[in-house]
Amino acid sequence: MSRSAHLLDTPHHDGSCRYVSQPFPRLGDTVDLLIRVPHVADVRSIHVRSTPDAEPAFTAAQVDRTTERDTWWRAPLAMHNPVMNYRFLLQGGSAGYQWLNGTGLHERDIPDAADFRITTFPAPPAWSREAVVYQVFPDRFARSAAAADRPVPDWAVPTSWDAPVAGRGPLTGRQLYGGDLDGIIEHLDHLVELGVTTVYLTPFFPARSNHRYDATSFDVVDPLLGSDAALRRLTAAVHARGMRILGDFTSNHTGVGHEWFAAARADEHSPERGFYHFDGAEYAAWLGVESLPKLNFESPELSRRLFDDEDGVVKKWLSGPEALDGWRVDVANMTGRLGSQDKNADVARQLRAAAEAARPDALVIGEHCHDFSRDALGDGWHGVMNYAGFTRPLWTWLRHPGHAPDFLGLPVIVPRLGGRAVMETMREFAALSPWSVRRHSMALVGSHDTTRIRSLVGADAAQVDVAAGLLLTMPGIPMITYGDEIGMLGDFGEDGRRPMPWDADPITPDPQDGSTPPAWDARLHTVYRDLIAMWRTHIALREGGLRWVYAGDDVLVYLREHPDQSALVHLARLAHEPVRLPAAALPGIAGGAAAYGPDPRFEGEDLVLGADGPHVGVWTWHPGE
Amino acid sequence: MSRSAHLLDTPHHDGSCRYVSQPFPRLGDTVDLLIRVPHVADVRSIHVRSTPDAEPAFTAAQVDRTTERDTWWRAPLAMHNPVMNYRFLLQGGSAGYQWLNGTGLHERDIPDAADFRITTFPAPPAWSREAVVYQVFPDRFARSAAAADRPVPDWAVPTSWDAPVAGRGPLTGRQLYGGDLDGIIEHLDHLVELGVTTVYLTPFFPARSNHRYDATSFDVVDPLLGSDAALRRLTAAVHARGMRILGDFTSNHTGVGHEWFAAARADEHSPERGFYHFDGAEYAAWLGVESLPKLNFESPELSRRLFDDEDGVVKKWLSGPEALDGWRVDVANMTGRLGSQDKNADVARQLRAAAEAARPDALVIGEHCHDFSRDALGDGWHGVMNYAGFTRPLWTWLRHPGHAPDFLGLPVIVPRLGGRAVMETMREFAALSPWSVRRHSMALVGSHDTTRIRSLVGADAAQVDVAAGLLLTMPGIPMITYGDEIGMLGDFGEDGRRPMPWDADPITPDPQDGSTPPAWDARLHTVYRDLIAMWRTHIALREGGLRWVYAGDDVLVYLREHPDQSALVHLARLAHEPVRLPAAALPGIAGGAAAYGPDPRFEGEDLVLGADGPHVGVWTWHPGE
Repeated sequence: MSRSAHLLDTPHHDGSCRYVSQPFPRLGDTVDLLIRVPHVADVRSIHVRSTPDAEPAFTAAQVDRTTERDTWWRAPLAMHNPVMNYRFLLQGGSAGYQWLNGTGLHERDIPDAADFRITTFPAPPAWSREAVVYQVFPDRFARSAAAADRPVPDWAVPTSWDAPVAGRGPLTGRQLYGGDLDGIIEHLDHLVELGVTTVYLTPFFPARSNHRYDATSFDVVDPLLGSDAALRRLTAAVHARGMRILGDFTSNHTGVGHEWFAAARADEHSPERGFYHFDGAEYAAWLGVESLPKLNFESPELSRRLFDDEDGVVKKWLSGPEALDGWRVDVANMTGRLGSQDKNADVARQLRAAAEAARPDALVIGEHCHDFSRDALGDGWHGVMNYAGFTRPLWTWLRHPGHAPDFLGLPVIVPRLGGRAVMETMREFAALSPWSVRRHSMALVGSHDTTRIRSLVGADAAQVDVAAGLLLTMPGIPMITYGDEIGMLGDFGEDGRRPMPWDADPITPDPQDGSTPPAWDARLHTVYRDLIAMWRTHIALREGGLRWVYAGDDVLVYLREHPDQSALVHLARLAHEPVRLPAAALPGIAGGAAAYGPDPRFEGEDLVLGADGPHVGVWTWHPGE
Repeated sequence: MSRSAHLLDTPHHDGSCRYVSQPFPRLGDTVDLLIRVPHVADVRSIHVRSTPDAEPAFTAAQVDRTTERDTWWRAPLAMHNPVMNYRFLLQGGSAGYQWLNGTGLHERDIPDAADFRITTFPAPPAWSREAVVYQVFPDRFARSAAAADRPVPDWAVPTSWDAPVAGRGPLTGRQLYGGDLDGIIEHLDHLVELGVTTVYLTPFFPARSNHRYDATSFDVVDPLLGSDAALRRLTAAVHARGMRILGDFTSNHTGVGHEWFAAARADEHSPERGFYHFDGAEYAAWLGVESLPKLNFESPELSRRLFDDEDGVVKKWLSGPEALDGWRVDVANMTGRLGSQDKNADVARQLRAAAEAARPDALVIGEHCHDFSRDALGDGWHGVMNYAGFTRPLWTWLRHPGHAPDFLGLPVIVPRLGGRAVMETMREFAALSPWSVRRHSMALVGSHDTTRIRSLVGADAAQVDVAAGLLLTMPGIPMITYGDEIGMLGDFGEDGRRPMPWDADPITPDPQDGSTPPAWDARLHTVYRDLIAMWRTHIALREGGLRWVYAGDDVLVYLREHPDQSALVHLARLAHEPVRLPAAALPGIAGGAAAYGPDPRFEGEDLVLGADGPHVGVWTWHPGE
């Protein structure tokens, strides 16, 4: 059989430490860039093109070394501006030259959107490079005994843990299952056993809804969750296990019941009046939802209370030993933007600075559901929630043809596409931000704001393995929503926030059986646990670059390359014809070992990757040259 | 014969008045967007996607009307932010949905870089919509009798009009041919006869070079050019002919001989010290060229002298009846940018505001030789010199295989590519800015900074016809460098700035003859004159949208569509197989007329576009539906 049409003969660069001499340079430093050029490629010279002070500049690359298979070229890049975009000009080939940028090779001139980028912004905290995040929606994760004694607020409809979640309607946001922070403490062992390292709590501030994105105060923890003392207990318990914990701060708006908004409404001359966008009795609100008045960052007093004051929101909750380790920022993309006002970048930088002032190792991640090129350079948010560049393309590959999930406001259903479209989409969105931002952005297969992955894929639970396989082999901070690891079901909206079924029996179903999935899928739990363990023990998966190798309708193959380890990832959504690759293109591969899944076959000079159905295979080895 | 693979069955939108209800809306307005969908396309519903306050929002389109061939859909777009990017979501097709943006249709998710854009920034002056610009390099265009009497400055090497231009070396910038402003007046009839409407003068400020981009003062006209009085005479003469005139202002730097720089160097405490980037005796300079110290816009006093003062540079030369009509801004892309400083957008807006304060109908065009997406939204420069989106792709199509011209610092030669690459490149760069910016950007086949088009194409002068054909049928403000219209030769650098050969005999050569071209090619002059006349008398070419129809290696076909007129443009660089198109896709075409070149053939139901060699054909008609 002939070999598959692969990308192993294509010149390659990415922003990882295999290809960039210094991941976090300072202004004025010179970074060395490496480009790997297989001998079979017709490349006669290479220049790096950057745009210092917005003028194109070319620097010749030199041959750094030659191996049996590749020529490695090296080119210096002076960090003249805080953000340097660059690409390579490869002379040769039938067209005369080619550009190599974040989306691959191009035989004609191209704009800069997909250029590689490197910045002089400070590095994210070291601990975030080891982080596997577990998202907890406090009302639905676990309920301590104390919850029963708490008074029920007027907005809430107490709901028993076993009752079904109501769909969109009068109960939206009002069903109170009563999960609390002490409930989380009681189940931290579940997280430890799963292998996650970081808890991310959706908001814990008092509010008038079960999701709490409509805070009525930023000064205290919701009594329904156990008040400040419970958060201290939780953070202490988390830290005692060597784990980290993130809060969720809504910088875009408060709840209509917020003390600031009350003051603003009561008195036109109050300092809080300027915190919002009032026009008489009217005010701007998140997507016009009246209960969520939008904050106005023209107000210096607002900046003080949020960012500058020692007991301001951002610093207060990050200060001290029993404090949070960082923030996930809600509606980060809209924050500070309204009409002709755009203070988003300022707010992001102020918030980051405040967080780092409180604790130098704070992590700040912004919510972002679409093109983040303007917002994700790494001077504000360290990274974003990578819905656009990870979740969406993953969904287009794994969505069951019979399932029509909503996705964050899209008026048509997510299409089901082949692997090539997935690769191209991931590559194009990845090219929008510096490697560090991609690495420190959350990869996620869904969240409390989406359909659950288990529902998305339809009857075949093994498709979830493939989703988790992508999650734990792609660059990024993997984020798992509570319950995904046991196959929790749920559609977009309230249904995606079902209570965690702690009392359910762990069951190991036949993944192909197709009947109603168990409430607690023990097989899937093992899959998640094993994949997380693999991620944590393989440097190539955490820090390696990303080199695409092959994309077919039903199969994706890529490399994660670190100086100390290479990993070949083979994912299939369905059975597929074997992918045949030249083993010689991957020096050292024959001496490797399976990190997950079966061993690949070697047939003569070929590496053969086959699958009879949904498949996750990861093979690692010490890289030759 | 079967029909060619064309784009006439593809849904279309562009930012022109055929597809947008209001070209210059204000904040808060709602604009109607139209999309043309041929019946053959599988489109079941359409939404417009925009990102108000950076959050994706979808609005359903409605069917506006149905014609024999197309369905026209209409969707409202609220101008919520000063810059609105948008694209269309077309439900249908095999993938489920497609996006339509500035680069066409996409069956997978895409970032926003190629979204359509519309802004609330004020419109460029009405006269610029009629402008055909003629670039004059004063030292080389024409010399009045008075020039002989002027003292020769120390830097200059007087050179007789017939002497060859020296290449790069000790004479670079120093050969003084002595062209002056009165010389231009003497030859304004040449411009009138050619049909151009606007003179663009490269700098007239005193300097220490023949190009004068190293100004020693911004307060007076170089005595070598005839001083202030000569400029007044020239502007009066230009205006008397109903024409306009642009100056050339270097906002990035001054000459090292500038009075400000002398003051700055002499006294560390002078206000002028802050105009530059000093570090002890060192100072920042344009690309490190010591004779061109870079201006520092951190200095409020500099802003005052350039922009705010009534006799400041920008306003002074635009004020009064015998004043300039606008500025071309040199090195606009680098202006205000150095290391961690980026005041470019501020400077562009200040400069525009100052110009408009002096005369509301001022035009401001920024030099820009690469990706202008950050800089060309239309709040600062009205448009840019479109090297990236027009000149470069044109060169890749028409460059003679035997000619290896330099291009603005590119370390390898411009490749020769097929028409498809040209179309894709033009389309992708056009998508980077709002339609209005594209329309008010200068299209140019070269400039005083490049190889001459006549040299670029090699022996066959008819290739210049094709270049001029593109220039005068593509959206933009056509700009012609003095001498291009008579086939002046010249390579990148000094050689591109030869003196205008007024004494040469107009000769009409056989365009295919291949021997040394005449100094004054009368045939080419006629071609330029006719194409300019065509442009000025056909609204479709000035204001029509752009719909690509066909791109082959050697042939490009596109439509310019205005509500009152359609134009079909057929350009060929070589003989090609006839392009066969369905005439029914172009209602009304059979009743049209040739605006340039031969009539197309109609065979049965087909429109047949053939060429035996280089070809420019423009056919116009009143559009049916």
